[in-house]
Amino acid sequence: MPTTLLKLSCPDHVGLLARLTAFIAEHGGNLDEVHQFTDLEAGWFFTRMAVETQTLRVPLADLRATFAPVAAELGAQWSIRREGDKMRVVLMVSRLGHCLSELLWRWRAGELGCDIACVIGNHEDFREVVEREGIPFHYVPVSAEGKAAAFAKIERLWEEAGADLVVLARYMQVVPEDLCARWEGRVINIHHSFLPSFVGANPYQRAWERGVKLIGATCHYVTAELDAGPILEQEVIRVEHFHSTEDLLRLGRDCERQALSRGVRWHLADRVLLHGKRTVVFRD
Amino acid sequence: MPTTLLKLSCPDHVGLLARLTAFIAEHGGNLDEVHQFTDLEAGWFFTRMAVETQTLRVPLADLRATFAPVAAELGAQWSIRREGDKMRVVLMVSRLGHCLSELLWRWRAGELGCDIACVIGNHEDFREVVEREGIPFHYVPVSAEGKAAAFAKIERLWEEAGADLVVLARYMQVVPEDLCARWEGRVINIHHSFLPSFVGANPYQRAWERGVKLIGATCHYVTAELDAGPILEQEVIRVEHFHSTEDLLRLGRDCERQALSRGVRWHLADRVLLHGKRTVVFRD
Amino acid sequence: MPTTLLKLSCPDHVGLLARLTAFIAEHGGNLDEVHQFTDLEAGWFFTRMAVETQTLRVPLADLRATFAPVAAELGAQWSIRREGDKMRVVLMVSRLGHCLSELLWRWRAGELGCDIACVIGNHEDFREVVEREGIPFHYVPVSAEGKAAAFAKIERLWEEAGADLVVLARYMQVVPEDLCARWEGRVINIHHSFLPSFVGANPYQRAWERGVKLIGATCHYVTAELDAGPILEQEVIRVEHFHSTEDLLRLGRDCERQALSRGVRWHLADRVLLHGKRTVVFRD
Amino acid sequence: MPTTLLKLSCPDHVGLLARLTAFIAEHGGNLDEVHQFTDLEAGWFFTRMAVETQTLRVPLADLRATFAPVAAELGAQWSIRREGDKMRVVLMVSRLGHCLSELLWRWRAGELGCDIACVIGNHEDFREVVEREGIPFHYVPVSAEGKAAAFAKIERLWEEAGADLVVLARYMQVVPEDLCARWEGRVINIHHSFLPSFVGANPYQRAWERGVKLIGATCHYVTAELDAGPILEQEVIRVEHFHSTEDLLRLGRDCERQALSRGVRWHLADRVLLHGKRTVVFRD
Repeated sequence: MPTTLLKLSCPDHVGLLARLTAFIAEHGGNLDEVHQFTDLEAGWFFTRMAVETQTLRVPLADLRATFAPVAAELGAQWSIRREGDKMRVVLMVSRLGHCLSELLWRWRAGELGCDIACVIGNHEDFREVVEREGIPFHYVPVSAEGKAAAFAKIERLWEEAGADLVVLARYMQVVPEDLCARWEGRVINIHHSFLPSFVGANPYQRAWERGVKLIGATCHYVTAELDAGPILEQEVIRVEHFHSTEDLLRLGRDCERQALSRGVRWHLADRVLLHGKRTVVFRD
Repeated sequence: MPTTLLKLSCPDHVGLLARLTAFIAEHGGNLDEVHQFTDLEAGWFFTRMAVETQTLRVPLADLRATFAPVAAELGAQWSIRREGDKMRVVLMVSRLGHCLSELLWRWRAGELGCDIACVIGNHEDFREVVEREGIPFHYVPVSAEGKAAAFAKIERLWEEAGADLVVLARYMQVVPEDLCARWEGRVINIHHSFLPSFVGANPYQRAWERGVKLIGATCHYVTAELDAGPILEQEVIRVEHFHSTEDLLRLGRDCERQALSRGVRWHLADRVLLHGKRTVVFRD
Repeated sequence: MPTTLLKLSCPDHVGLLARLTAFIAEHGGNLDEVHQFTDLEAGWFFTRMAVETQTLRVPLADLRATFAPVAAELGAQWSIRREGDKMRVVLMVSRLGHCLSELLWRWRAGELGCDIACVIGNHEDFREVVEREGIPFHYVPVSAEGKAAAFAKIERLWEEAGADLVVLARYMQVVPEDLCARWEGRVINIHHSFLPSFVGANPYQRAWERGVKLIGATCHYVTAELDAGPILEQEVIRVEHFHSTEDLLRLGRDCERQALSRGVRWHLADRVLLHGKRTVVFRD
Repeated sequence: MPTTLLKLSCPDHVGLLARLTAFIAEHGGNLDEVHQFTDLEAGWFFTRMAVETQTLRVPLADLRATFAPVAAELGAQWSIRREGDKMRVVLMVSRLGHCLSELLWRWRAGELGCDIACVIGNHEDFREVVEREGIPFHYVPVSAEGKAAAFAKIERLWEEAGADLVVLARYMQVVPEDLCARWEGRVINIHHSFLPSFVGANPYQRAWERGVKLIGATCHYVTAELDAGPILEQEVIRVEHFHSTEDLLRLGRDCERQALSRGVRWHLADRVLLHGKRTVVFRD
């Protein structure tokens, strides 16, 4: 059943949910799913409403136009879109393909409601895997001295692709700060540890040395500060003394695939709202 | 902050949430937490609303009186109550005390918002444990020939206690069908298996024989059919070949304590709505 | 480091482990990993020993020949093989490809130490996916009247492939009893429920109707009795009231992929020993 | 069945397990349970053997005396003791009682094979809870200026109690470094975060601020460096955006109770071997 999604966050007021649901009802909209969360401490309100498109008496553009002054008055960040108008996604990869393969598989299985515009790699390893899915692959090597130029090219590719979302699927280059800033809230990364444990390089080796009994992975938005962006999802798995660092790498891959897939799925379904360093995630 | 809770389920209509939130807003109520779920297949609507009591412009009785005709028109099952008006609970126990101890501990820790009216045992084992908490203990032995009389006495104790909820905390007698029917939705049991696996007696022994790799526990409402009532919560734990039946008993206790505690907590906070054989649980 | 694997089960005796480790030591073998389990109730002993191949002073054939009389005396079921001598595997598939894709991906990633001899489907859907990995695909349709002939052909393919293991990766035909009997302990299935719950057809639909709060998948050996064979591994995931049957199907796929992958991996690494309806699994 | 436990770690050699099992066999010992682990990178060997006491042909003292020169030759750290000779435990507590209550409950339930010599608190809150179990309670307040004297008294109490193990059950004073050093490997702490995340104070508050999606608890040996000792066990629980810091405190308590109970149980059953910053834990 075609669905129209309203996503909104704003300062909390008395009667806010009544006003929003009344707005939907006035336009004939039947609500299939409503999520609401009020952060009482911060005084902030978050909602996601899924409306049956066919019950709405006005076209999408009119609905947006009518809603704009309401939202302005509320001081809201918001979006209204048809679920069927899929987001365009760019995937970034280096030499480890498990997250890329997982996302491609879920995309083919229909679990991710998106179009994959292209894949960009700083190595050529996965060109064939990508192209046989009918997706363009761009090879953009990143050298120490050519980093600025490479990322200029990468940003151009993102723009040309009309990317709504960029996913770093084990892309092992640090994205420049200014690029992070310009694309804030639109770049998702998977970090191979249970953050904030083991920020930075070689987390599995360091997890082994510390002797932790659970390892994990963290799906988060990229911000200028390394591995410090808002977290969408985390996954863990139990490990024991007999697991070598290689075992942790193997077991951790499963955590990474799960956490990244879920985080991306929820973002694509407008289920994630940002507020400072925290996320509100209306899971499904 | 004192809170007033509205819990409601009814056939789904367009504009239902708008109508309910408007009702709250008209009485000045500030919504702290709203849960909504529409079962699209069944065409049924479920909600729980937590309103800041001090923002309501009318007393509780008036709010109820004003709401009654609205609810009647909607064909709704509903309740409105102050969170601080704690439910009265009767605990039932036999010879295994882990669930009883857990509930008493959580109650003392303030995790269960309820009054414990009394504990009834068909053995005397836990009289001291109960009485030192300042809670009355009633010993009602149940023999094969005296079963009807015993349960008549038990029901009388429930009624005298003004019980809103009865919890079978590893109470090993089967409750008579007519008693189940009269108290439907108000008696919670913990079954020591992951239902619907291993209905009935000796589930751990049978789990060992079947060689399952996870065991569990199920918190459910009691109905006339054994172990078939609506499920509130389940918990599992991984087991291996080296775990004996005694190990399963030990590990299973932890599942039972967790699943029962959570199920009872959610019921007491009006977070559980029944619909046929299924529950809607707005977890916290 | 090349490794030689000894796997053995037999009636328990005093001094059994001493005798076996002495046997390895006499041949110069350095033990990297030893697992032992004694089922005290059944009086049965299970072990898996990983020996550094290069430290052994005799060739594999001689080691086996020398060990045979020892094993005979112990009444043992046993095998000795080089880890590098990979088992040959046949995969069976119908129209749902998630388990097939997962196994192929893990095989490519080196997580499954095996050769995939071929894939057999009763539908053509995955021919391309399989053949592009360089693996032969056989299409063997199974009709009601042609079932006997089809499974005769299938068994011939298993034999021609020299299959050590057959994996039913969501193969939706019931394997005939006599075939199950002949291949006992060498056919692994994934059932899409947490057994013994929901044996048979449509487990997700039935899980939804029962209102369980966790769903799962079970990896087990195939026996003549449907879904009753020894369990290698199980996986579960939490579900809530808002998950439709379609959601359960989606979430369950992740459980199936995990449970099947682990079960198959452990079988291929000689980590699974059978004893009646139970398995001993020396996990890694 | 009475059991004698051998626990040993030493540099790895060829034939080590053969030698140890032969030693047991020579004395008639029947092995019920053997765990072995070789850390190939470190070249270190770890074992735990459970022997049926009644099958041993020599008394415990003789067994130890005969084993001592073998162990010396191997450069081993080792112990041999009867499982029934229970360790003596001192519990330390401050103002949060959930871990204390959990340990007392498990001790009464027979899950912890130990004697509880006494409980020491820097507050009086739990005197009654402890004394009604028949356990002595010592009140040792710790002030800033009187800290050295207080811990001198505490160590004297540990010594007088003949403590084999001290458990910091949410004891909120930092134990002096020299005391940590003298009691290394014999003091277990529960930290209320998933280490190495959130070392130090207020971990739940910091977890909330960071917006993690799982919180946890860590059971570890105390060393001079704060929250950096070898980890015995960790437990995690999923949290969402709607959980306040108070909710994290509540949910985290369950993790703390579980992780601490398991770590203590395994230590008391000689299932934990230390090697540098890591532990070998032969779980049950």
